[in-house]
Amino acid sequence: MTVYQSEEIKKFIADILTKVNIDLEKAEIVADSLVKADLEGVSSHGVSRLPIYVKRLRENRINSQPKLKIERSAPAVLMVDGDNGLGQIVACKAFQEGMKIAKENGLAAVAVYNSNHFGCASYYCQLGFEKNLASIITTNSPSGIPPWGGKQAFFGTNPIAFGFPVKEADDVIIDLSSSVVARGKIIQAAKEGKSIPKGWAIDEHGHETTNAKAALKGAVLPAGGVKGYGIALAVEILSALLPGAAYGPFVQNIYQEKDGPAKVGHFFILIDIESFQPWIQFDRVLKKMLNEIKNSPKADGIQNIFYPGERRAASFREKSVSGIELASETVKELVLLATEYKVPFPQ
Amino acid sequence: MTVYQSEEIKKFIADILTKVNIDLEKAEIVADSLVKADLEGVSSHGVSRLPIYVKRLRENRINSQPKLKIERSAPAVLMVDGDNGLGQIVACKAFQEGMKIAKENGLAAVAVYNSNHFGCASYYCQLGFEKNLASIITTNSPSGIPPWGGKQAFFGTNPIAFGFPVKEADDVIIDLSSSVVARGKIIQAAKEGKSIPKGWAIDEHGHETTNAKAALKGAVLPAGGVKGYGIALAVEILSALLPGAAYGPFVQNIYQEKDGPAKVGHFFILIDIESFQPWIQFDRVLKKMLNEIKNSPKADGIQNIFYPGERRAASFREKSVSGIELASETVKELVLLATEYKVPFPQ
Repeated sequence: MTVYQSEEIKKFIADILTKVNIDLEKAEIVADSLVKADLEGVSSHGVSRLPIYVKRLRENRINSQPKLKIERSAPAVLMVDGDNGLGQIVACKAFQEGMKIAKENGLAAVAVYNSNHFGCASYYCQLGFEKNLASIITTNSPSGIPPWGGKQAFFGTNPIAFGFPVKEADDVIIDLSSSVVARGKIIQAAKEGKSIPKGWAIDEHGHETTNAKAALKGAVLPAGGVKGYGIALAVEILSALLPGAAYGPFVQNIYQEKDGPAKVGHFFILIDIESFQPWIQFDRVLKKMLNEIKNSPKADGIQNIFYPGERRAASFREKSVSGIELASETVKELVLLATEYKVPFPQ
Repeated sequence: MTVYQSEEIKKFIADILTKVNIDLEKAEIVADSLVKADLEGVSSHGVSRLPIYVKRLRENRINSQPKLKIERSAPAVLMVDGDNGLGQIVACKAFQEGMKIAKENGLAAVAVYNSNHFGCASYYCQLGFEKNLASIITTNSPSGIPPWGGKQAFFGTNPIAFGFPVKEADDVIIDLSSSVVARGKIIQAAKEGKSIPKGWAIDEHGHETTNAKAALKGAVLPAGGVKGYGIALAVEILSALLPGAAYGPFVQNIYQEKDGPAKVGHFFILIDIESFQPWIQFDRVLKKMLNEIKNSPKADGIQNIFYPGERRAASFREKSVSGIELASETVKELVLLATEYKVPFPQ
């Protein structure tokens, strides 16, 4: 682990992306999304993703100059063809256009197809906060979770995020995957020869396993048992079937050499809070409730009760000063990119 | 357990409700909702609720003649004041009005306040299917779930339901509470003097309990650990703060003698599928996916993979013929009502 100042890494990422034909303004969006994930403590969706993005852009498996088609199919609905661009570029533009019609109608839905991995779902929730928009964000992803009773991955780990702005305090961000755990953690355990906790995964026969290598041949379990299966299915229908994206096993995997364009889908619901309550009233009641939650009687051994979004914000504040930690494997890959594209890597 | 024909019980419920000043047409909606829950195998939200409804209506703690106020606060948003009517009456009307503006705008949100327990969330998903509407339905409810790290119930067991219509096949209905189990199941176990499985709940001191009555004084655990806490919070903000209903501990409990009007809130998002995809196309892809799910490789010992909504529909079909089973405790209460109101109870 080495520590880097986030602004320097952000500039590095943007510079590298411009070398593979991404416009600077758009490269900065992607850089911001990746670095913010590391700042917020979600490094699995952060800077470590850059090398694979660059590789796929160079191979034209991701389109560096996508021409988005945005169609307003109904007063409160946008259909967005991402033209196989980087997910962050596609999703930001789609979300921003959605904000306009949410402000007009009180509510908007944006259905995105022909997209790619878009980083953290929470990033898009945050885009709406400035305009007093709450949001529900979903995306599908390559197969990770089996149907309940099945033993082979079908659904993506399909996150759903809910975002609610709080003025001058940490925003409420609930960003959860439909699976118990990210597949990446199992890959890591297998690499290190460690076992995994019971309840994370099944082997190829559908039996629960604590053997990480066996788990990799099987599938990750849905969160909350059959409930996670239900959420994974709901997210798949919203994110893939409404937009007309690829679903389940047909989503292509950016990490697989032989796969084609990912054809990921996203679905956003944007909610204009002021169409429901005067802003000040909503904010006052939300803050009152959050305070009451934090002051609830605590279970033995618990020092603090947090609401979803607090730790993310605390991590962001802390690492914006102290810097972000990058794993040595990631640094190695970034240095290779730096050398290849003659872009100075931060020291 | 005694078995009754559902149509006879439905008529009985409607007749009883008219005796406590509910208009027949509205009484039939409530009867349909309760009996459908039993038919679909969700008896915790079914006929067993009638006695408490009647008691509260008689005490004027629930308004038998609510005058709903429906305000279109934005083109795609309805705010609905339920005037403390029975939840089913309020929610059905609110949902039906929402359907109209969803058809106009592609999407609609309906925020309901001053309402009561509305039965199964799935019931409202089903209302939209005829018009090719998908939906996301949430409601809050009296405190049941503690914040993560807390030991005292704060949030309701806050269900979220996703409904997607499937033509001439079982609709997809994902209806899940934020808790490990619906509080209704613990209420029912307490009523029947049964114990509950370990892992469902804690008592008022924060200790795990299998005693249903002790659990009702304590709290139900969130599903999927911290993820269930996040969903409970999201549902609470959507269902209570956007509509301006009571939240968390301020929602009054229909089962508590000294409580006042429940002030429950609901939140509906209605999605017009045809504003996204041609209906036939959506239906074709959804059916293809559901077939693939059902034909996924099965874990050892698994005979069938079901998608959410299939078992509910199978139960409905089966019990529509064979009849619904009512617990003897429920029957006893219904017979008392029959005697008091001179309404014949089905034999």
